[in-house]
Amino acid sequence: MQSDQGADLYTLYYAPDNASLVIRVVLEEIGAAYNTWLVDRTAREQESEAYRKLNPAGLIPVCIIDGEPVFETAAIALTLADRHGQLAPAPQSSDRPAFLKWLFFLSNTLHPDLRQLFYPQKFIDPDPATLSMHARKTRNRLEAHFGILEALYSGFDHPFLLGAEPTIFDIYAGLCLRWPQLYPAGSPPAFVPADYPVLSRMLQALEVRPSFKRAFEAEGIPAPFLSEARPCDGSLGSPV
Amino acid sequence: MQSDQGADLYTLYYAPDNASLVIRVVLEEIGAAYNTWLVDRTAREQESEAYRKLNPAGLIPVCIIDGEPVFETAAIALTLADRHGQLAPAPQSSDRPAFLKWLFFLSNTLHPDLRQLFYPQKFIDPDPATLSMHARKTRNRLEAHFGILEALYSGFDHPFLLGAEPTIFDIYAGLCLRWPQLYPAGSPPAFVPADYPVLSRMLQALEVRPSFKRAFEAEGIPAPFLSEARPCDGSLGSPV
Repeated sequence: MQSDQGADLYTLYYAPDNASLVIRVVLEEIGAAYNTWLVDRTAREQESEAYRKLNPAGLIPVCIIDGEPVFETAAIALTLADRHGQLAPAPQSSDRPAFLKWLFFLSNTLHPDLRQLFYPQKFIDPDPATLSMHARKTRNRLEAHFGILEALYSGFDHPFLLGAEPTIFDIYAGLCLRWPQLYPAGSPPAFVPADYPVLSRMLQALEVRPSFKRAFEAEGIPAPFLSEARPCDGSLGSPV
Repeated sequence: MQSDQGADLYTLYYAPDNASLVIRVVLEEIGAAYNTWLVDRTAREQESEAYRKLNPAGLIPVCIIDGEPVFETAAIALTLADRHGQLAPAPQSSDRPAFLKWLFFLSNTLHPDLRQLFYPQKFIDPDPATLSMHARKTRNRLEAHFGILEALYSGFDHPFLLGAEPTIFDIYAGLCLRWPQLYPAGSPPAFVPADYPVLSRMLQALEVRPSFKRAFEAEGIPAPFLSEARPCDGSLGSPV
C-alpha cells in the first residue's frame, strides 16, 4: 500500500461521460493527485496509432500508473483501490470473493451489453429493421441485468454492496445505470430509475458524495448525476 | 493466504469444455481439493430456479468458496489465485496493474465477443442473412483481439505474461484460443493457430502441463488440447 499519496500522480485519458468517468470518481474518492488528457472522439483519436500504444484495443479510458498505461475500466479501478487501500475489501478479506464476482459481472456481462446498446453498428449492419431487432434483444438482456442488481441491493440493510461506504463496484454500477438513461440519444431510455426503487435509493446515496460533484462538474454534467440523469453540456465533445 | 490447503474443499459447477474448464485447470494447478457438479445444459439446468440461486445470470461456472457461490470465470480464478498465492502476482506487486488489465481485457473485451460467436441467437434473430452478417462482424472484432494477444506475447522472451510460469491470465487466454477453433460446430474456425506463430508456441507450452492433462481428460477431451484443439467426446453432454 502506498501511504505517501503525494508520490502518486496519475494521468487519466478520458472523454466526457465515458467509462473514464468511473475512474475520475475513484480518483476523487481516493483524493489522489491526477491530471487528465481529453481524447478527441470526434477525430477518433482513440483509434490513432499514438493512442493504440497506450491501449491496443483503442478504448477509453487509459490511466498511467507508475509509468504503465493501464486500460480496462475495472482493472484501473481495482488497481487504484488496492494501491490506496480504499474502495475495495482487502485482498484476503472474506468479503473479497463476493466483491470480485459482482465487479466482474459488470465488466463481463452488463458493460458489454451497454456497448451493444450504444454502438450497435460495431455488431450489426445498421439498416433500420436490423437495428430495431438488435435493440430489442439488447434491451431484454439489459432488463435482466438491471433486475439482478435490483435484487442484489434489495438484500442489504445498508446502501452499498458492503456497507455504508461505496466500493468501486457501487461506483461502476452507478455509472452503468446512468448511461442507459441518456444513450443512445433519441431512443427511449433502457433504464428508467422509477422502475427500480431500490437502485434509485442507491443512486441517490451515491450521487450526493463530493467526489461525484467534483468529477461530474469537471466534465460539464449537471446534477442530479445518477438518479435522474441529465446529459453533459457537450462543451468537451461528444460523450458517445 | 490459506496455508492449509487441505481445509479448502471447493465445488465447481461445470459443463464440458465450457468456461468452467478455466477453473478446473486453475484448481489442478493449485493442487486444491475439489468436487464437481455437472450442469445439464441440454435440460437448460443453468437457467433453472435452483441454479439461479447460485448465479442469477444463469451462466456457467459457479464455484463454491467458503460456502459462497462465486460466479464469473475471472472472479473465481482471481479469488483462487489470491487465496493460494499462486498463478497471479501478489496484490501489491509492481506486475499487478499489467496483469489486471490483461485479465479484464479477456473478461470485458475478448470473452464477450466469443459469446457472440457461439450464441448469436442471444443477440440477433437467427435468419441466415442476419447470422452471416453478424458472424462476419464478430469475426472481424475477434481477429483484432487475437492480433493484440499475438503482439503482446511477441514482446516477451519468456513463454507467459510474467515469466516462465503461467498466471490465470495465460490459462484463461489459452482456453479463449481453444474454443474458436471448434465452435460453433460446422463453421470455419475463427482462430487458426497456424496464423499466430507466437500464440501457438504459448499454447504448446501451456497444454503440456500436467494440470491440463488432468483437467481435460476429466471432461473427455483428447490431446492436443490447445495448439491444435480437438473436440470433447460428448459423453458428458453438449459443450456449447
